[in-house]
Amino acid sequence: MKIRLGNRVVNCPAVWFDKGQIKLIDQRALPYKFRLFAIKTLADAESAIRDMVVRGAPAIGATAAYAMAQAKMHNDDLTAAAKRLKATRPTAYDLFHAVDYMTNEICSGSDALESAKNYVNGIVAECRQIGIIGEKLLGKRCRIMTHCNAGALATVDYGTALAPMRAAHEKGKKLFVYVSETRPRLQGAKLTSWELKNEGIEHAVIADGASGYFLTRGDVDIIITGADRITSSGDAANKIGTYEKAVLAKENGIPFYIAAPISTFDFSIRKGCRINIEERDQDEVLIINGKRITAPGVRAMNPAFDVTPAKYITGFITAYGIFKPFQITTKLKR
Amino acid sequence: MKIRLGNRVVNCPAVWFDKGQIKLIDQRALPYKFRLFAIKTLADAESAIRDMVVRGAPAIGATAAYAMAQAKMHNDDLTAAAKRLKATRPTAYDLFHAVDYMTNEICSGSDALESAKNYVNGIVAECRQIGIIGEKLLGKRCRIMTHCNAGALATVDYGTALAPMRAAHEKGKKLFVYVSETRPRLQGAKLTSWELKNEGIEHAVIADGASGYFLTRGDVDIIITGADRITSSGDAANKIGTYEKAVLAKENGIPFYIAAPISTFDFSIRKGCRINIEERDQDEVLIINGKRITAPGVRAMNPAFDVTPAKYITGFITAYGIFKPFQITTKLKR
Repeated sequence: MKIRLGNRVVNCPAVWFDKGQIKLIDQRALPYKFRLFAIKTLADAESAIRDMVVRGAPAIGATAAYAMAQAKMHNDDLTAAAKRLKATRPTAYDLFHAVDYMTNEICSGSDALESAKNYVNGIVAECRQIGIIGEKLLGKRCRIMTHCNAGALATVDYGTALAPMRAAHEKGKKLFVYVSETRPRLQGAKLTSWELKNEGIEHAVIADGASGYFLTRGDVDIIITGADRITSSGDAANKIGTYEKAVLAKENGIPFYIAAPISTFDFSIRKGCRINIEERDQDEVLIINGKRITAPGVRAMNPAFDVTPAKYITGFITAYGIFKPFQITTKLKR
Repeated sequence: MKIRLGNRVVNCPAVWFDKGQIKLIDQRALPYKFRLFAIKTLADAESAIRDMVVRGAPAIGATAAYAMAQAKMHNDDLTAAAKRLKATRPTAYDLFHAVDYMTNEICSGSDALESAKNYVNGIVAECRQIGIIGEKLLGKRCRIMTHCNAGALATVDYGTALAPMRAAHEKGKKLFVYVSETRPRLQGAKLTSWELKNEGIEHAVIADGASGYFLTRGDVDIIITGADRITSSGDAANKIGTYEKAVLAKENGIPFYIAAPISTFDFSIRKGCRINIEERDQDEVLIINGKRITAPGVRAMNPAFDVTPAKYITGFITAYGIFKPFQITTKLKR
């Protein structure tokens, strides 16, 4: 992804492997500081995923794939390593997919680092393709709404939801993106707007509750988000607040798309009610920029994801085409 | 309203008149500090309303009524005073209603301060009655969702949406309130949870985008909000994010009520599209607790209200009964 550092523009992925270490753009420091985080041990990898140094299902998967390769290099117990990595966060399917993929690769005698690199390159290639395919959905002048960050930071490069926007912008299409800030952790305001600004794509941040307002006014042509886990029937878990946008889109006749690599599809479950929704610390809601927003003693509830039933989803933008929810099992089955 | 100050519990309205000054609880300081704000001049009143020392349509109306009485005492030009007050904020109908009421009272020779006190006492009496009537909608164990602050702070005392909860709590009903934080200004987290805590009503703050999650799970029995302006056909402007909750409530078969005094009903317009929606400063979105949440140069859009069409509103809780939107003109006409 394009990153502006002062007057320089550099090109940098969100996750890579260098001299025995996994390197991450520390997403907790953005948009204030561009800082790298180095994973040297399995414990580092666990905390990087759990504490959201890296977030976004595909980028978590990439980190986990490299962490398995690193564990192999360090002669760690691979079964224990797999278990520990899988325990870091419960909702993103890519995490489980990547760890299982690496376990199989290592067991079948493949070079662990090569396998991890193949996994990550595969994600990046898919995201690039999602961009090429999804770009066709965007008109010459197009107003898009997105939620959370489904950009290069969340996917190593290009992004899922942001990939079609990058591709359309490169083609000279005139875009305007409504970026909902995405409380509690503000990934829309902090990360998506940072990526869009780096790319030079016009956008504005809005409060999460303002989405409906812009949808009713006819100010939005299409909504595109990413996903953390998609079931075989097309129910999709994504950042809390996604379900609301999908319902409001349907109510207002606006197409709602989810962009995702194959690693986000969990063919082992059919219905969204079977997805484990992570409850995160209530302080993510209660404390903003170090300051409490409520009276002392007030509590919060903080589900990190919600599930959008397939009936609200116009289609899935994948590297293999755009599919309706009912087409997932026939068109995408691994 | 009940206010806990250390070990003391005091009873205090949000707005009152004392020795020539209008006294307000400074809502900008809550929940951190309990601080009063004194309005000595018309300019003070203008800035108190514009800068949200006082907010909430009925409380703005009360402040404006006292400000007109104060203007009369100071021998200010009343036509100019009315115009200046009406220009402070565009959406809350109570502001216009109160100023017109006071103009008529003063022109017809009534004592200005007496008239203002009558106006304010009328609001408080209505809110108390809204509590008595709305309480019947709440079961013995009831899970309620609300948005923004439609409590005593917003209405001088009792509240609109919060009045039925206060009445039910007094009767010993077991309540649990989902308080959506209400970005950008966080009136849910800062004000509603402060009021509920003072009353001892159990509740939790949630991110605005999490409302749908709790509605889909069957965790909520009823949604009640206030309003800033209600048209004769029952379209209701209220804090940004209200429309989303109403749509989601309907989609999930959960009743959605709006509680309001008669001063919030604007019988002069029929459709919600004719309500003027205030656009506030983008820094309300971009800066939280003094810290910017985006990269520099990123902009925000900040509509302060949205309009919920009548078709999503189960009923209006008023001092005169609970009415369907289509009953407004026959049952409530002033």
